[in-house]
Amino acid sequence: MDDVKRHFLERDTFARALGIEMLEVDAGSAAARMTIRPDHLNGARVAHGGAVFTLADFAFAAASNSHGTLALSINASMSQTKGVREGATLTARAAEVSRNPKLAVYSVLVTDETGEVVALFQGMVYRKTTPLTDLMKTP
Amino acid sequence: MDDVKRHFLERDTFARALGIEMLEVDAGSAAARMTIRPDHLNGARVAHGGAVFTLADFAFAAASNSHGTLALSINASMSQTKGVREGATLTARAAEVSRNPKLAVYSVLVTDETGEVVALFQGMVYRKTTPLTDLMKTP
Amino acid sequence: MDDVKRHFLERDTFARALGIEMLEVDAGSAAARMTIRPDHLNGARVAHGGAVFTLADFAFAAASNSHGTLALSINASMSQTKGVREGATLTARAAEVSRNPKLAVYSVLVTDETGEVVALFQGMVYRKTTPLTDLMKTP
Amino acid sequence: MDDVKRHFLERDTFARALGIEMLEVDAGSAAARMTIRPDHLNGARVAHGGAVFTLADFAFAAASNSHGTLALSINASMSQTKGVREGATLTARAAEVSRNPKLAVYSVLVTDETGEVVALFQGMVYRKTTPLTDLMKTP
Repeated sequence: MDDVKRHFLERDTFARALGIEMLEVDAGSAAARMTIRPDHLNGARVAHGGAVFTLADFAFAAASNSHGTLALSINASMSQTKGVREGATLTARAAEVSRNPKLAVYSVLVTDETGEVVALFQGMVYRKTTPLTDLMKTP
Repeated sequence: MDDVKRHFLERDTFARALGIEMLEVDAGSAAARMTIRPDHLNGARVAHGGAVFTLADFAFAAASNSHGTLALSINASMSQTKGVREGATLTARAAEVSRNPKLAVYSVLVTDETGEVVALFQGMVYRKTTPLTDLMKTP
Repeated sequence: MDDVKRHFLERDTFARALGIEMLEVDAGSAAARMTIRPDHLNGARVAHGGAVFTLADFAFAAASNSHGTLALSINASMSQTKGVREGATLTARAAEVSRNPKLAVYSVLVTDETGEVVALFQGMVYRKTTPLTDLMKTP
Repeated sequence: MDDVKRHFLERDTFARALGIEMLEVDAGSAAARMTIRPDHLNGARVAHGGAVFTLADFAFAAASNSHGTLALSINASMSQTKGVREGATLTARAAEVSRNPKLAVYSVLVTDETGEVVALFQGMVYRKTTPLTDLMKTP
């Protein structure tokens, strides 16, 4: 199971390219961290919404795939009330709110290094029966 | 005005790093394109939700900043019903749905090269009075 | 099929209680109308978000159930940029954006009698295989 | 302050018509309850999404107006993974996640009488400087 998670997460080339680090994965929860780099900024010189979203989405993906079968994101909403500067270190913590055999819902809170909330994210997955171990067999 | 837009968009280092290309910007609307690269994938070997979101968010940012004053994203929701494979070329088209002096709402449709919808995105901005030209003066 | 739709819609006691009127239902689309009554208001004396949402959700339900099998709402997002006064007549128009055997996405625009947009709504359904005709057999 | 809250909430005719009961309001948080009646159902004979949304929205409104100045909902997203039967008693608990002078974000969890989650709601308000006491002076 730990192998599955590690492989699954290591295969996430987009998260890796952004410098996202997995802090922890447990059954139904996960935490990840990212420091805002110059290449994460938008035209207004704050962290791009897409970069903050990716961090939250990654924690969400880790939490929702933690049960060992493939979970695909079908919906996500994110509210932001604070611009994030270069150099800030963001932490996203995902928690499972509800889960049935087909669908599950997660809440993800993104905070900066001072503990201030920068984004609230809510996501839903469609749960397949495919074991993650099968997925690992494809190149 | 065109200079402002071009500069604003060129300053978006995150969109540039992802290979996003601006197709057009008009008053209240914009279109952008991105081809899914190996470094855009998630652990399930399909386009990362964060990559698709960033493309939609970029078109949304261009459309909402097209009026010449700074617009900051405060809320975004995205639905996805189809996985996107490496090599697919996605186009995001943002259209203004509603705008008042403080808030504006945009709808963004993301399609692949066959015209099939891969995501529907809806975003809201908070509109500041800061002219984009002022923003350009900061490094 | 028209019988199914009519019955399904007539069974919606909540929409009926709110005075919502179905304007049209077609394959993948629907329109509905509601005039804001005193009992639709919130404490700030504008239309309650829940009333506007219900109108949009009803058009969304009609559009998503128009294919003859049961579709259940699993996610909805609504943006509002304008307060709605008592006496205003709102029209919600739902359009199908994407549909596969399990999931479908709809966009709903709510306008007032002057044509001004008051809300943009985006919803996703989980599609069951249960025919609506079977549903009608239960009391 | 308690008077303001009580009056503001008593003025919510839509929530009253639906039988929503305020359980508690505190600085940045609130809880409300509603029992699903026959006139809350949709055509599939489960609680209408609009009824569940209204309960969540009401707790959100109470929490966001608890600081004494007018807060207007501008965005809301709701995920549902479980149908709710007639007779169920739902409780919505709203908590403030983030707040600045202009914008604030709330998370609302809706559970049934068995404690099971039926919906997760996330909402954003635009904060005006209008004191609620001024609002009370209008009829």
